[in-house]
Amino acid sequence: MPIDNSNMLKAIEEFPAQCKTALGLAKGMAVSGKINKIVVAGMGGSAVGGDLLKAYLHSSKIPVFVVRDYKVPNFVDEATLVFAVSYSGNTEETISAFESAERNKAKIIAVTSGGALSAQAKKLIKIPAGLQPRAALGYLFFPLLGVLANSNIVAVKDDEITEMIDILSKTDEFKIAGERIAKKIGTRTPIIYASELLSPVAYRWKTQFNENSKTAAFHHAFSEMNHNEIAGYQAMDKNKFISIFIRSKYDNERIKKRMDITKEIISTKVDVEDVFTKGEHLLSRIFSGIYYGDFASYYLALANKIDPTPVAVIENLKKRLK
Amino acid sequence: MPIDNSNMLKAIEEFPAQCKTALGLAKGMAVSGKINKIVVAGMGGSAVGGDLLKAYLHSSKIPVFVVRDYKVPNFVDEATLVFAVSYSGNTEETISAFESAERNKAKIIAVTSGGALSAQAKKLIKIPAGLQPRAALGYLFFPLLGVLANSNIVAVKDDEITEMIDILSKTDEFKIAGERIAKKIGTRTPIIYASELLSPVAYRWKTQFNENSKTAAFHHAFSEMNHNEIAGYQAMDKNKFISIFIRSKYDNERIKKRMDITKEIISTKVDVEDVFTKGEHLLSRIFSGIYYGDFASYYLALANKIDPTPVAVIENLKKRLK
Repeated sequence: MPIDNSNMLKAIEEFPAQCKTALGLAKGMAVSGKINKIVVAGMGGSAVGGDLLKAYLHSSKIPVFVVRDYKVPNFVDEATLVFAVSYSGNTEETISAFESAERNKAKIIAVTSGGALSAQAKKLIKIPAGLQPRAALGYLFFPLLGVLANSNIVAVKDDEITEMIDILSKTDEFKIAGERIAKKIGTRTPIIYASELLSPVAYRWKTQFNENSKTAAFHHAFSEMNHNEIAGYQAMDKNKFISIFIRSKYDNERIKKRMDITKEIISTKVDVEDVFTKGEHLLSRIFSGIYYGDFASYYLALANKIDPTPVAVIENLKKRLK
Repeated sequence: MPIDNSNMLKAIEEFPAQCKTALGLAKGMAVSGKINKIVVAGMGGSAVGGDLLKAYLHSSKIPVFVVRDYKVPNFVDEATLVFAVSYSGNTEETISAFESAERNKAKIIAVTSGGALSAQAKKLIKIPAGLQPRAALGYLFFPLLGVLANSNIVAVKDDEITEMIDILSKTDEFKIAGERIAKKIGTRTPIIYASELLSPVAYRWKTQFNENSKTAAFHHAFSEMNHNEIAGYQAMDKNKFISIFIRSKYDNERIKKRMDITKEIISTKVDVEDVFTKGEHLLSRIFSGIYYGDFASYYLALANKIDPTPVAVIENLKKRLK
């Protein structure tokens, strides 16, 4: 079977342009009235968009909940803004969660490229179709941020956006680093770590290795891993696993110290690879962290002679679930 | 080095008695006034107590947040009940989170066996000392539930408690199953799955394997794993990994079906072991699920000639962090 990588590589390379387009998609879309809770209902890549929103709003007075399930929690009410996010619009969990949010009279905005969700939603942000959902992360995040900005729930500064786009636009840097990391990983199982704040970035790496590279991959957060997972390194085999630390200047000083000491301790058992996120703003830190992983997962697929684009097992599962 | 397992085995065997004692520890402790958010700040085993509370309150109108970090979120306020939970009372993240909750004027109850936290807390539930924190899960969960019951935030029925204690008291059943599962795992890395609702049970298994058995272990939830992790099974090696599915009659019918089909699909790559939780009530489902894993992790330590009790690497890390 020949490996056709052109679609996924192109999608990853065009990610900065996708973010720019995505920023305009929420134009004119806002909610009014009291909002004291935000829920993002979605699965896979769509849920990661919610995780990133939660990270971005980490210092907000309004809590963000990411729901990866068939219903929204019972505390969802009229004062809850619910984003129902599904790239295809046909994710059964998200449609079911959307319906439960309707029963709870939440303010709902659907974000989708089509499908049943676009037919059912009263308020809709339509995003461009034709990508693998995981390659559409810009479309699955920035419209949510746009709605919150339009609704005066969060202030997004122009220079945050500009910096992020500028950093990502130096695509070659991420590409080269991603290829280098992929080579280093080889056939080993990567375990990706970040601070609690950036743990969605670590999770995104994990899911990209799963879906693009079709390999096992796991993640955990600092400092929680210091309380359990680190003990599992006692019998760890350098040939089986490799650890990746995603670093940020936004990490608490104690977290930085924990990462340094943990690296020293576990380096006797496994190789540890540091990945340094970039930028002055949190948005840049988040998306530069993600961009390294997107390329790493792509090149790991190539190295293992895997076509990164199709995920046959997920498609097969969906068919069997019908 | 001789392996002294007596402490950990004894602690696990006495877990039903610990739960009974723990149920009385919140006696007379309640909060009054408006509560519209509950936060559990803790790390490791103490945070798992919070995860279990969140699962138990999954249909509540009051959201529960588990904070594994150095500070509580900014939305913590006078109407927030914060449990600061640290078995030793000296967990730096929890003390720091406790202090941030005080600055936010939250209603705080500390749950600890002593340490700095017990000295700093104005409201305190003192739990018995002398155990490994992970062996004190009863003390780290039931006092929180007790406070919520005393404060009329949740109604805990006597027959839920009775059923759970009855089920756990048939200890031999869990012991025998745990030993059998440990034998099956051998030197492979377990990946433990449960529904989103019971994912804290899967996480508890993971942490017990890490700390008791000193082995790598990972977890994920249904149906999210169907959207990414399942694709990682393509290159999975039966000799490296084994998958464990924790099942419950409380699982959504679609989740049950997803588990069945996923098992069929991944069984071509790895062995899959089902673990069936017990009981009519959610509390029994949670704790019977946990109890199997506690014994499995204990017997996996023995099988690999590991002393389950000490976690030298965590103690070493703490010393180096000072």
